[in-house]
Amino acid sequence: MRDRVLAAVVSAGMTKFGKLEGYSARELLALAFREALDRCPELDPKRDIDAVFVGNMAGEAWEHQGHWGPIVADWVGLVPKPATRFENACASSGVAFRHAVTAVKSGLTDVALVAGVEKMTHRPIQETTEFLALASDHPFEQLHGLTFPGLYALMATAHMHRYGTTEEQLAMVAVKAHKYGALNPKAQFQKPVTIEKVMSSRVIAWPLKLYDCCPVSDGAACALITRPELAKKFTDTPVYVVGSGQGSDYIGLYEREDLTTIRSTVAASRTAYRMAGVENPVKEIDLIELHDCFTIAEIIAYEDLGLCGKGEGGRMVEEGRTELDGDIPVNMSGGLKAKGHPVGATGVAQVYEVFLQLRGEAERGRQVPDAETALTHNVGGSGPTCVVHVFRR
Amino acid sequence: MRDRVLAAVVSAGMTKFGKLEGYSARELLALAFREALDRCPELDPKRDIDAVFVGNMAGEAWEHQGHWGPIVADWVGLVPKPATRFENACASSGVAFRHAVTAVKSGLTDVALVAGVEKMTHRPIQETTEFLALASDHPFEQLHGLTFPGLYALMATAHMHRYGTTEEQLAMVAVKAHKYGALNPKAQFQKPVTIEKVMSSRVIAWPLKLYDCCPVSDGAACALITRPELAKKFTDTPVYVVGSGQGSDYIGLYEREDLTTIRSTVAASRTAYRMAGVENPVKEIDLIELHDCFTIAEIIAYEDLGLCGKGEGGRMVEEGRTELDGDIPVNMSGGLKAKGHPVGATGVAQVYEVFLQLRGEAERGRQVPDAETALTHNVGGSGPTCVVHVFRR
Repeated sequence: MRDRVLAAVVSAGMTKFGKLEGYSARELLALAFREALDRCPELDPKRDIDAVFVGNMAGEAWEHQGHWGPIVADWVGLVPKPATRFENACASSGVAFRHAVTAVKSGLTDVALVAGVEKMTHRPIQETTEFLALASDHPFEQLHGLTFPGLYALMATAHMHRYGTTEEQLAMVAVKAHKYGALNPKAQFQKPVTIEKVMSSRVIAWPLKLYDCCPVSDGAACALITRPELAKKFTDTPVYVVGSGQGSDYIGLYEREDLTTIRSTVAASRTAYRMAGVENPVKEIDLIELHDCFTIAEIIAYEDLGLCGKGEGGRMVEEGRTELDGDIPVNMSGGLKAKGHPVGATGVAQVYEVFLQLRGEAERGRQVPDAETALTHNVGGSGPTCVVHVFRR
Repeated sequence: MRDRVLAAVVSAGMTKFGKLEGYSARELLALAFREALDRCPELDPKRDIDAVFVGNMAGEAWEHQGHWGPIVADWVGLVPKPATRFENACASSGVAFRHAVTAVKSGLTDVALVAGVEKMTHRPIQETTEFLALASDHPFEQLHGLTFPGLYALMATAHMHRYGTTEEQLAMVAVKAHKYGALNPKAQFQKPVTIEKVMSSRVIAWPLKLYDCCPVSDGAACALITRPELAKKFTDTPVYVVGSGQGSDYIGLYEREDLTTIRSTVAASRTAYRMAGVENPVKEIDLIELHDCFTIAEIIAYEDLGLCGKGEGGRMVEEGRTELDGDIPVNMSGGLKAKGHPVGATGVAQVYEVFLQLRGEAERGRQVPDAETALTHNVGGSGPTCVVHVFRR
């Protein structure tokens, strides 16, 4: 296995997700960075970190601010080191993480800071919806009034039509997310919900109701990665990256042959599995953090990640197979649905969660016992981008 | 030298720069890609290209469109391959190029498409100025009314004050740019100008006049890169990347100790020189494409790149040392000033130019005879980002 290791995560930090009033995005990032430093006293940032990788989706819209690479380098004290901003919609920091792994593997970077941030809640919700729509196709989606709940609703109705997936099964994804989010002190929502509550919440874009949709959130997360052979210099318990895959799909749903699958997830996961030597993900992976921006997204991801057959995703959640005591625990952090979804931070926040889990540091009731292998799945927009990583302790 | 080679450029393409009415950004990119394919008939894109790297600064603002990675993958027929968008202001595609070189060096990518694009001219100039300002600091620059001509004017007055640099020397940078731009069929401006014309043009932000500023432009450029050992499969005359450096500086001018230098350029160039084994750039490099968004930027870049001593940049242009027949020809393409500056395209457009030059394919009067080594220098904003590459044929 040793020669398959791409990189090692030696520390990570994350703000609480939620409505964080009075902070700007750069301040949130500095807070997340502080936690990562506190957790890794052996690392001297100025001496050791040699490049910065930042994921941010739409700071231009929310704070009239682009050029996030050097802003982050400045706020963590790393000028004049190289600092790059990545934008792949809600997969921005998952993609930043992948490129940091690539840089470490190339030998051009020894220690990289990967950071993700989004500050969203200070703007009116109409603006937020419009800004998020930047990640969909302008001529044929945005201009016709399609927003993200609508896009995922189209996928949901297609899945219901073809496979008999039910509104109740969608609701079960939300119930599971809130159940574990309630145990995560960094989650935006820390209250369990019932199926009845989800089913009776107001319709946003049928069949998706309020509780089928992730919230609007502020937050930041970061991770420090290095070459595997340097990892023990910084921590006795690094987490290794053993697979990395990224894929694309048509940005416009109108271009896709099938609305019940996302090609980028299939491509990214198969690349990552091949690299990590994973043949049967349900058997070989101990937990998954996947991109449940809407409940239907989790069900489709089960199928596209190969955790079950096509059309079986609804049953998978219904049968409890993705609970803590199921075949393969999914989103023990609460997921985007309950933990929150500051879009540019989500990819690295997933890395933060698996870093805790694989070191046995997550809270009781959501810690997967003796977890050795984990997977993160981060999607941009309606699926035009997906990035998947496999980790081992 | 062989073992120092990071990657090889096997083809490149570029639209004309200028006011390209009736095209959207994605269409411009497809046109640039077409030229790159036509120049490299041995390459089958679907079979050979395995990742897409896109530089775009502010499609969100100009076309209400983000998520450029998968859009480009779609328009060049490469879905479901990985596709990433990079944003580092006007250095977006230079940074994309660097990360593609990194990916090739890591072994995770065999052949990469690097593309850059910006469509700017269809919006009113007030909006364009505001959108460009996204690359400067929001709280302490944008909110106080500073725009890019103002930021560079501050650097110019500091340089004039400390070193006696003159308005005439600034004008000479513009005259040189137009002289060579007039010979470049892809340049936005193809007419020589006189010092008198530059000096008498209207003041934008003193001491910068209209002809001290690059224009607003539409355009796209791309390059195809691969591992050195695969290059000859695709062309008999590849151009090799032998040095790559990136640096950062404080985004706010108010944070910098010295306005007459840009730290990111110093850091990026020294890294690239070290990697390429360059000790004396004037002697060892045959031509430079540098980031002359304003005339003062070229003079400061001479100094920061180590082509002359601190404060000697004005004399360097005055003495003709950066002309075609000078010590080290600079911006034989016309530079941003005359070739045009579609911000997200500029970094790769510089690569396009050195690709032509090192293969001896540039037009008469601007082709550097027997050029063997070249350098590109791409800056984001007022200097918070700089990326430098060294190439050899």
